Order: sequence, then structure tokens, then C-alpha cells
Amino acid sequence: MIVGFQGEPGAFSEEAAQALFPAVETRGYPNFDRLVDAVDTREIPIGLLPCENSIHGPVARAYDLLYAHPRVRIVDETKHRIVQTLIGTPGARLAEIRRIESHPVALEQCRRFLGSLDDVEVVPVADTAGAVREIVRAGDRSRAAIGPAASAQRYGGAILAEAVQDETENYTRFFAIERDGTSRRRLGRAVLAFVLPHQPGSLHAALGVFAARQLNLRALVARPLAGRPFEYVFYAELDCPDETQAQSVVREIGAETRILGWY
Amino acid sequence: MIVGFQGEPGAFSEEAAQALFPAVETRGYPNFDRLVDAVDTREIPIGLLPCENSIHGPVARAYDLLYAHPRVRIVDETKHRIVQTLIGTPGARLAEIRRIESHPVALEQCRRFLGSLDDVEVVPVADTAGAVREIVRAGDRSRAAIGPAASAQRYGGAILAEAVQDETENYTRFFAIERDGTSRRRLGRAVLAFVLPHQPGSLHAALGVFAARQLNLRALVARPLAGRPFEYVFYAELDCPDETQAQSVVREIGAETRILGWY
Repeated sequence: MIVGFQGEPGAFSEEAAQALFPAVETRGYPNFDRLVDAVDTREIPIGLLPCENSIHGPVARAYDLLYAHPRVRIVDETKHRIVQTLIGTPGARLAEIRRIESHPVALEQCRRFLGSLDDVEVVPVADTAGAVREIVRAGDRSRAAIGPAASAQRYGGAILAEAVQDETENYTRFFAIERDGTSRRRLGRAVLAFVLPHQPGSLHAALGVFAARQLNLRALVARPLAGRPFEYVFYAELDCPDETQAQSVVREIGAETRILGWY
Repeated sequence: MIVGFQGEPGAFSEEAAQALFPAVETRGYPNFDRLVDAVDTREIPIGLLPCENSIHGPVARAYDLLYAHPRVRIVDETKHRIVQTLIGTPGARLAEIRRIESHPVALEQCRRFLGSLDDVEVVPVADTAGAVREIVRAGDRSRAAIGPAASAQRYGGAILAEAVQDETENYTRFFAIERDGTSRRRLGRAVLAFVLPHQPGSLHAALGVFAARQLNLRALVARPLAGRPFEYVFYAELDCPDETQAQSVVREIGAETRILGWY
């Protein structure tokens, strides 16, 4: 089985894929669109799509892609801790490092650590795992990269400092997605999409359908609907142990409502 | 008057600041935290903070910072169109370009355009406007950068291609923020924060307070509450022409509710 993810080999998404599906083959895609396409066309049987980060919030693009690909279903989920690691060439020591490379978001997450170093140039590059690959390939003991521990292992780098990010609590949640798939573990969770007119009370009425059944709302994301100004699609994640209950919710909310996954 | 923004001189945020406040002085800050701090400590009288992008969704960090700085108030808002531009040194022609530099997010937004060019190296850097400054400083006719048109004007670059992003509809909405500020234009909008227990129906009940008054919900953002697992802070933006009505809504929702701005 091949599990797809977005990013370079050794990326955080690949770490998450290997944690949820041990001992599978993985394949990286350059962006979310290509990943969801690969699942929809059965190029790969399963993909791992980030839906939320504890610091940055929901990944709106992920929900939009699921809405646009109705045959692609959410079948499972996993929460992965993001730990940034300083990685050098084998034998390098922290005191020797004069240049640190990583993706700008990773560099921003490690502001305190980077600020504590003297005489180090900080260089943005396109990708965390790619930065690790490049510094190991160059073999220069004065160059290091910030990225996932998995990328040190994959490319033969040496970990010089662990957990260098400012915020220790940094998690990304991922959906596992399959074309025409069904629940893998029956966690009792439903993800719904529904379109509402931009009118006072319309969201309140829809949430009343959940409240009447005592269904806990785990996440709610509102997105403008492409090409339909002033209308919104809402994505709601519910604790919903019974799949038929998810179907009855969808019927009650009405016309433009769809289950993106029950898992 | 000085208006603060996040980014380098010539950034999209500075374009937006100059559109909302013509003929003012602007000052760039390296990140959102420093910008909101500068407003809270009266280092600058006003700041422009992005709260939502039409492609990427809400900027959760912006709401969190406003919640953490109760003296900083939203006093106005503006919507700014993001147009990516290819900028070279004066006299350069598109056919001569062999290297294009920009922030990874900007490069990602211009995938189709970049894919249409032959024999061009694409290089990620920390900042769009900074990329323009650097290629103009280098004076090499084979190097270009992708960034805001404002940065070409500021650094003396030449526009080689306009609107090179894949999606033409790309807007960022910004809040104008002031320490202890009040509404500048009385647009009749309220931004509220309220903390809810993670229980079935709690959000439905809160939204009922808006629905009962026929107040239109413009945006709703849910964020985990730092250090309080399983509790969420919700940020709601309402059309609310009357400021006293915003105050009565807050009283009715209850204890942990706060108006971040009525403007």
C-alpha cells in the first residue's frame, strides 16, 4: 500500500503518515491539489491531508478540496506533534554552525532559539526536509537545517539540538482520505459540508439540528463559496457514534448538505 | 501619523495601509506580535492587522493577539486585492530572466505562470518586497522577483508582467487597530470574543443571542484556548449598526465575553 502526503520525503506529513500506517510505502506530492487528485484518480489508495494546526488554525484549502472531490472520503484521522530539530552534517557540533536553513514558517517558529545564537546567518529555503537533504549533501560542517527528526534519519544528518521551536504544544491534525472509502476504525466522527444563505439566524438554525440530538461540535469552519458572493459553505465536525444519525442530520439540514466522511 | 504593518517596506500590507490612510507615514514590523505590541505600548498610534484571506481563510493569530491585548481595539477595516507582479531591474526584458525570487507562498500562487517559462530557476526567499529590493540592488538583468507593484515603485524596479498569480480573486481583509480606540467610520460592525464549554449545544445557544436580534454573522472563528484543554474561544463578527446592541449581546452571552471592537 502507498500512502500519499504533501511535501518532500522526510516532511512532518510523512512522519504522520508513518505513525498512522506503520510499514507502508509513502509518496510525496508538491501540493494539496495534486495529493487529492492522486486519491480521486486512484493513482494512490490513500492520502494524508492536514486539516488543522493548533497554532495556525484550520487548513481551509483541505476542506475546500474535499468539497470539490465528492468521491474522496475521510476514513480516519491522526494528530501529529510538530517538533523542530536542528540538523547538521555527521560530526558537526552546534558551536561550529554559521548558517541555518529552513522554510520561513519553521524559522519563524524557532525565533527564540535562533535569537540565542551568535554569528549565525539564517537562510530561508522552500522546504524543511529539502533543507536537511541539501546540507547533508553539501557536507559542510558549518551549515545546518531546521526540520523534522525523520528527515535527519532519511538523509543521514546528525541531530544537533532537539525541540528548538518556541511553542512546545504544536500539533497538526490530518484526515486520511480514500476514493469511495469507508471508516477504518469507527471512531464515531462525522464531517459535514452545508451551504447557507448569508442571513441572520441561518447558522443558528443549522446548529440547532446538532444540538437537538446532543451531538458535540468538534470543529466549525466557514468558507466563502467560489463564484457565489455572499453565500458560505460551512464545514462541521461532529462526535456522532451512529452513521445513520449523520445521515438524518444531513436530511434535516436540507438541500445542499453533504457528508465528507463518517469514520 | 504613523501606521504600522507587518512586513518589509513595499509589502502588500503597506499597500493596504496606504489605501486606507492616504498620505501617512508607514512602519514595518517583523511579525504580528511586534505590531500589536507596538500599538498596545503607543509606540505607533495605529496598526493594520490582516484577519482573513479569501484563499487561505482566517488569520487565527490575529484574533488571538487581539484577545490577549484587551486595550487594543478594532476601529476600522479594509479589503485589499493581492496582485502578484513580476519585477526586474530597469531595462530588463522578460525573455532575459533566468532566475525568479520570492516568498514560497507567492511562488505557490504563481505556479501556472512559472510553469510557462523555460529555463528559469525559481528561488525561495524570506519576503516578497525584500526580494524586489535585492534584485534591484544587484542590478543583474537576468534576475527578477515576484511581489507587490508597490515594491517596484519603492525600490525602482521595472514591472515585467502584471497579475501573474493563478487565482485572480485573492483578497486580504485587514483590521485597523488602536490602543483604546473608537470607531473611525461607524460601519456598524462588531467583533466579539466568547469562551464556550465544549458541550453539545453551547455554540447554538450563543448564536441564538444573535439570531433573536436578527444580527447577521459575517465571520466565525473557533480557536482552542491556550492552557485550557477542551475549551474554545469563538470570535464572531456581526453586522450591528447600534453599539449598545453589541453591549447587550455581550451581557446576554455571559461571563467570558468581550467586544474586541465596534466600528
